[in-house]
Amino acid sequence: MRAVVRRQKQLVSDEIAEPVPAAGQVLVRTLACGICGSDLHALHHFEHMLDLGRRAGSASKTDPARDIVFGHEFCAEILDHGPGTSTRLKAGTRVVSMPIMLAEAGFETVGYSDRYPGGFAERMVLMEPMLLEVPNGLADDQAAMTEPFAVGEHAVAQSGIDAQSVALVLGCGPVGLAVIAALKVRGFGPVIAADFSPARRRVAEIMGADIVIDPKAASPHGKWRELDVPATLAEQSIARMTGRQGRRPVVFECVGVPGMLQRVIEEAPPCARIVVAGVCMETDRIEPFLCISKQLDFRFVLGYTPEEFAASLRHIAEGRIDVRPVLTGAVGLDGVAGAFAALANPDEEVKVVVVPGR
Amino acid sequence: MRAVVRRQKQLVSDEIAEPVPAAGQVLVRTLACGICGSDLHALHHFEHMLDLGRRAGSASKTDPARDIVFGHEFCAEILDHGPGTSTRLKAGTRVVSMPIMLAEAGFETVGYSDRYPGGFAERMVLMEPMLLEVPNGLADDQAAMTEPFAVGEHAVAQSGIDAQSVALVLGCGPVGLAVIAALKVRGFGPVIAADFSPARRRVAEIMGADIVIDPKAASPHGKWRELDVPATLAEQSIARMTGRQGRRPVVFECVGVPGMLQRVIEEAPPCARIVVAGVCMETDRIEPFLCISKQLDFRFVLGYTPEEFAASLRHIAEGRIDVRPVLTGAVGLDGVAGAFAALANPDEEVKVVVVPGR
Repeated sequence: MRAVVRRQKQLVSDEIAEPVPAAGQVLVRTLACGICGSDLHALHHFEHMLDLGRRAGSASKTDPARDIVFGHEFCAEILDHGPGTSTRLKAGTRVVSMPIMLAEAGFETVGYSDRYPGGFAERMVLMEPMLLEVPNGLADDQAAMTEPFAVGEHAVAQSGIDAQSVALVLGCGPVGLAVIAALKVRGFGPVIAADFSPARRRVAEIMGADIVIDPKAASPHGKWRELDVPATLAEQSIARMTGRQGRRPVVFECVGVPGMLQRVIEEAPPCARIVVAGVCMETDRIEPFLCISKQLDFRFVLGYTPEEFAASLRHIAEGRIDVRPVLTGAVGLDGVAGAFAALANPDEEVKVVVVPGR
Repeated sequence: MRAVVRRQKQLVSDEIAEPVPAAGQVLVRTLACGICGSDLHALHHFEHMLDLGRRAGSASKTDPARDIVFGHEFCAEILDHGPGTSTRLKAGTRVVSMPIMLAEAGFETVGYSDRYPGGFAERMVLMEPMLLEVPNGLADDQAAMTEPFAVGEHAVAQSGIDAQSVALVLGCGPVGLAVIAALKVRGFGPVIAADFSPARRRVAEIMGADIVIDPKAASPHGKWRELDVPATLAEQSIARMTGRQGRRPVVFECVGVPGMLQRVIEEAPPCARIVVAGVCMETDRIEPFLCISKQLDFRFVLGYTPEEFAASLRHIAEGRIDVRPVLTGAVGLDGVAGAFAALANPDEEVKVVVVPGR
């Protein structure tokens, strides 16, 4: 089948072996698959990602020297069932799935595995129990957003945010936008959103951000006081003494570059909760004394639970989250390498979807 | 009055001006005052501490070039009442107090202020509303442990630990020992405690640690698995699939030197909650990707609430927490400089109490 393959840190279009569904697996045809920021990083740094993952305890056996087919944000159509499947969803059914395969020694991630090609290929194998039918005639590219928007579901669930909180979302790429959507679908707010890119700020506004800030023009932390959050230790002490605790600041760090954490540490109000969803792959420097003085609380989050993945699909399919403003581009397999380049410029694209049949 | 003064990064015994209680304040005689690890640090690095504090939003106006009298872990006796006091506690009453003074522009900390000498002096002024009477004839030096043990109360309260958790306390100095005591007084456990010093490990055992580890001989993280905590991402995945979540790991970082956080990040099990009570004054390096992969949760804690401070006194006075094993030394004012030197060796002393009248 045709696929876009990572080979020697390049993306090349090639013919690769047809995947064959093993026990419990189904063969699917890829209809649409989003390009994730992690894919951009993995193109050049997959070895480092795997190494970090193993140091964190991942049991993946993938060899980065072999061909890898990226793509873990997909919508697909069932073609065939492997042995030992229930066939509860018939051939022709459109599905989404968490990009996870149970292998002998643990989990492999579809799209970051040398055994399970991801969605930048004509066909994939998936685990039958993971499949969710796409309801309501939802378009392929929108259904493919189930995965990235589930990341927002999870970040918001882990944040412990409540009606007395004010949210600040730093970075309005796909992760930040998914967080904004997940906050608004639950009725949380006000939501402040910050991004250097005017295009992404516009999308943040469409996704429901109440206040949108250009960090070049003003600190994203400049609004706390007027939104009833004690912004300094002194203000917090006074608020406590007068029995007016004010609202609680919750910061979603969705950028993931070195230096971001320290900037949040310096600028966040006391007792802020900081949900770290931006994936920083490099060693970073922080000043723990500032964290202690402000009693900051950091929750590092990754992925989602099966329930959050299913909730993401329902929100999109039932119209509570409109993902269309995020979908800025679509390419065929021959356009993947170009899309990777275009995505490096945050003013050009937010989410590009690959349509292998295009 | 006689006091030990920080002057040009030296401790010198000198006569200083008698403190005079202003409105709402009382004059007290210092009976006993513990030496805190922060005092050791502040002797040489008070300028840096104040600078970091101000960057975190502290409104302290203290000038580190002026004389400072350290000492914020005290038991004292009321001598006289300033104007506008209720005199609800009579002269002669023994008291403890949070070391906090309300100044014009915010808070000052008794013992880290150029206006409010701390307990390494014959007398202090304190705020009347903050005073708690020492009950049950509790000895002065034990009452003085109210403050450091309140730090343990607060860390445990902020940890969100429950009966399904396993606690690991890294560092068995006064902060770690206070955490162990606060855990055991609530019935939480098992509690694993780790320290390089055999003397401190012995005290940890007396304070109730269930398992005591020498990090030179074995990783403090080596016991998770046998205590039913999934110790790797793979083990956690399997635990989830089989509906056996196991017990939750809660790590109390009570060392506070550069590199400790990263070591915890590397060695802690997935989904560990890490309560950071060790005060690291230097810039530190971490790998956020490992935090994200393991979905770690960091709670940086400092100080205590008035309720936690009062609970600490009650636990000690009513015999639920026996602080005597921690009290390894006592000196008069002329012994303070020597005690600072001795405390640099963790095998020699745990907590030295200064008795100005000695």
